[in-house]
Amino acid sequence: VHRFFALVDNIIDGDFIRLGAEDFSHIRALRLRPSELFIVCDGEGTDYICRLGERGEDVAVIVETRRTLGEPDVDCGVYLAYAKGDRLDFAVQKSVELGAREIILFPSERCIAVPGDASKKAARFQRISLEAAKQCGRGRVPNVLTANSFEDAVNKAGRAKLPLFCYEDEKKHSLKSVLESYNGKFETVSIFTGPEGGFSPQEAKLAADSGMISVTLGARILRCETAPIAALTALMYHSNNF
Amino acid sequence: VHRFFALVDNIIDGDFIRLGAEDFSHIRALRLRPSELFIVCDGEGTDYICRLGERGEDVAVIVETRRTLGEPDVDCGVYLAYAKGDRLDFAVQKSVELGAREIILFPSERCIAVPGDASKKAARFQRISLEAAKQCGRGRVPNVLTANSFEDAVNKAGRAKLPLFCYEDEKKHSLKSVLESYNGKFETVSIFTGPEGGFSPQEAKLAADSGMISVTLGARILRCETAPIAALTALMYHSNNF
Repeated sequence: VHRFFALVDNIIDGDFIRLGAEDFSHIRALRLRPSELFIVCDGEGTDYICRLGERGEDVAVIVETRRTLGEPDVDCGVYLAYAKGDRLDFAVQKSVELGAREIILFPSERCIAVPGDASKKAARFQRISLEAAKQCGRGRVPNVLTANSFEDAVNKAGRAKLPLFCYEDEKKHSLKSVLESYNGKFETVSIFTGPEGGFSPQEAKLAADSGMISVTLGARILRCETAPIAALTALMYHSNNF
Repeated sequence: VHRFFALVDNIIDGDFIRLGAEDFSHIRALRLRPSELFIVCDGEGTDYICRLGERGEDVAVIVETRRTLGEPDVDCGVYLAYAKGDRLDFAVQKSVELGAREIILFPSERCIAVPGDASKKAARFQRISLEAAKQCGRGRVPNVLTANSFEDAVNKAGRAKLPLFCYEDEKKHSLKSVLESYNGKFETVSIFTGPEGGFSPQEAKLAADSGMISVTLGARILRCETAPIAALTALMYHSNNF
């Protein structure tokens, strides 16, 4: 079933949706038969099952309204240090598939590639997020934000109820031991992962000062794009969102 | 610390390793000081911590011998249907990082891209496996094998004690419910995932006939390269190998 996000100019009105020009032309290009169903998601967790009106207008009839199944009940921000090449593309796409609520890009001491124009980059990643959200059946399109500094990122991440700092030099606390010892619902979580060269000791200290919990992701050294998706998968698995 | 696999012609002899020509020239290119340590792994789960001999020869002195930390205690074969472009590269690399013991590529009804010369492809993926194993600190280099047919793949996969068939149309059993209900050690596990278009009902039947257990990976539709790494991560997390 084809699925669209009513993000820009689709107007939901009672039992009807007036489709925006872009979605309408896309739907027309699909040559759906009048009886064929498609889904319009409002981007806030609700799916509208629709069919086209019989007169071929840009108005769709809502057949059924339901909560989007693809939305996890944990609000997890994934914090990614800038990385080279297509690693960030990949990490953003997979984070969306695996259920991140929000993705925050940040500079870090050992980053090899910090973009000159972060807002341009962010727009590109926002499009990756939208495509991934459509494809995998998310009920929301995760926002991709940029933090201006490591400090800003760590301060924001530290405000989650469970702020996880994935740190290669952490030898004691595994992600699993921390998730298992956490009493409470996994309402807000941060997963914070570093660049190719890892975090500096100073950065680890800043993270600790802002209340983050250092965790190790195990004995194997995961690449910078693998660590966030492994940690996010483990969180979703642990919290029954998988 | 630099790490090598003694796979080809490094000869381990008591307290010494005679380095093969390739590794020796690589080590020389690194310009290690005589006191600097490096690791030679035998590819069977043992690491030799070494330093170069003082006379600059191709003989390294073994300082310490230890079990490789990066090796999980679950023997998991990851079965990947042929896929387009760099998706398989990615899935192979991440499967190695996340602890697969063996990777098996197979053709499937809805595969878009089945290579003409599978053995050539396999050699390429074997190199990706080697590089990933080196980088992440594995104690073994996972073999990348090819199955000639879907039936061959499913027969091999079905022989594991816990053979998991990741199937989009499975609505009842989640991966988590199956892992939790499994009584026993996770000795041999298969994770079997499909191509872009998923498995056909006939293929699902063949899998069931060979004793595989269908599982769903949750409400979000994961891409063909995301499903195996998510399932493998969950298995490693669940079995305390993460």
